[in-house]
Amino acid sequence: MNESDVLNRLRQIATDPAARGLLDDVALLGDLVATHDTIAEGVHFLPEDPPDSVGWKLVTVNLSDLAAKGAEPLAALLSLTLAGDEEWELRFLNGIAAACESYALPLVGGDTIALPSTAPRVLGLTVLGRAGPNTPARSGGQAGDTLWLVGTVGDSAAGLAQLQGDRKAHGPLVDIYRRPIPLLDAGQRLAPHAHAMMDVSDGLLIDARRLALASNCGAIIDLDSLPLSSDFIAERGGGRGARLFAATGGDDYALLAAMPADFDPALSLSLPSRPSVTRIGSLAAPGPPLSLVSGGRPVELPERLGFEHAC
Amino acid sequence: MNESDVLNRLRQIATDPAARGLLDDVALLGDLVATHDTIAEGVHFLPEDPPDSVGWKLVTVNLSDLAAKGAEPLAALLSLTLAGDEEWELRFLNGIAAACESYALPLVGGDTIALPSTAPRVLGLTVLGRAGPNTPARSGGQAGDTLWLVGTVGDSAAGLAQLQGDRKAHGPLVDIYRRPIPLLDAGQRLAPHAHAMMDVSDGLLIDARRLALASNCGAIIDLDSLPLSSDFIAERGGGRGARLFAATGGDDYALLAAMPADFDPALSLSLPSRPSVTRIGSLAAPGPPLSLVSGGRPVELPERLGFEHAC
Repeated sequence: MNESDVLNRLRQIATDPAARGLLDDVALLGDLVATHDTIAEGVHFLPEDPPDSVGWKLVTVNLSDLAAKGAEPLAALLSLTLAGDEEWELRFLNGIAAACESYALPLVGGDTIALPSTAPRVLGLTVLGRAGPNTPARSGGQAGDTLWLVGTVGDSAAGLAQLQGDRKAHGPLVDIYRRPIPLLDAGQRLAPHAHAMMDVSDGLLIDARRLALASNCGAIIDLDSLPLSSDFIAERGGGRGARLFAATGGDDYALLAAMPADFDPALSLSLPSRPSVTRIGSLAAPGPPLSLVSGGRPVELPERLGFEHAC
Repeated sequence: MNESDVLNRLRQIATDPAARGLLDDVALLGDLVATHDTIAEGVHFLPEDPPDSVGWKLVTVNLSDLAAKGAEPLAALLSLTLAGDEEWELRFLNGIAAACESYALPLVGGDTIALPSTAPRVLGLTVLGRAGPNTPARSGGQAGDTLWLVGTVGDSAAGLAQLQGDRKAHGPLVDIYRRPIPLLDAGQRLAPHAHAMMDVSDGLLIDARRLALASNCGAIIDLDSLPLSSDFIAERGGGRGARLFAATGGDDYALLAAMPADFDPALSLSLPSRPSVTRIGSLAAPGPPLSLVSGGRPVELPERLGFEHAC
């Protein structure tokens, strides 16, 4: 027995169509979408991370799942564990409150339990949203679709790398790592037209491969086209190594959308200039689930495409 | 700073009316109700408890919150932590599956994360339900209402006491402790007529006091009237000590309802013979939030009314 037996058993239980095979960002119940994220100390955040940023991130990564489905925030339920350090907990709640306020997400319930003070904190959030006129699954992509990215990639991974070099590092890249911005408005505008959409949380390459596999297509990504921020370029450059780092770093909370070939979101939707909306590739007929090109020529895939994790 | 500062801060954040001040069993969003319970190893269950009963209980205690609001099960999201013991996890999921199947509750999503194997498991479940024509709050009780109890009290606490004496104890009381039954049907029938309703999870006396305080009334409970099962009486007798034990034991998942004085659920609703529906007291004008009587005379309150816990 191993971890994948447990995940297979979960999928056997979650047979309702609303579960979308547990393969999508959210469950879809009529016009309601629901998502849940759990984070643990030592796994998803470190004891020395600012507690308010942990709270902010827990809310916004859930909202990013809503953004990827074009849904509107409706309500949240918080699972809070108390580990005898009220200063940490109050600062964590400040981060929760700031994010809920920023994105008009009312906190309406949850549960608070005490943990032994030696146990790592485990924190969870369920977010409910109101679906828009279309809730694109990961699996709706079609051969011939163009792939678009909303936002940039690499900033967060570059910020994390700075922190790994120096725990006291700060600046715009660290800020983006600690305080991701869910692209709710862009998601709502794209969703009615998208064949498939998801948020990029584990790395663009691994997530694009997932979208392609779910859609029974092959994704072709043009490395040269990847949108990089000026802060990222200042830190790591814009060469192939930097682009592969950005494409596999994860924690981006950008949106990846498969759109009909004749639909150009930049032209068709009156989008603000930020976040950027960039064409980064296309979906092809089934074949290799993921291919990379640069300068019109194939590029070998890196060994690691992003974060693999339980579910 | 202490725990109550954290809980006060939570209440400051959860100001939306849907949150019901975090004082009710569920959040109410239009015709949707939402509830979440988190349980931790060593706090809410023990490593040696049968994992399938832990899964069953996590589902059914959430469903009991729905029952108390007269709501119908709609969907669940599971927060599962993997601690490297797949046999435990598969058996836990068997319990989740059995309860979801028994009560037509589709599992539609959630999150699965890995924990260090030394960390205590923390498991969470969000349950969504469809509200009925009335969703009684805890706070709607009125002076003059009669108090009714659906189900019995004490069985679960008696089962736990058996287990504390002998880890291998078994029998009907242990079964009820391990596998509570949510009273969904009775809750749906009573809710349209109830002024206030809640489930009895922490002990009848502490929960009746909470209902009375929320309703700005005083609850008067007649000890002699408490419904005890024949299994309970066989184990602990039916005297005053046993009745106080039953009224403070908790984990009952009975329903406590404040009904208009002229409404007798036993007469007005075509209820099945089980679970029993018993008149156990009344609500009076504000005064002491809880009074006990027996044989028409006041009885001193026990020092401990039930479980106090974080939220």
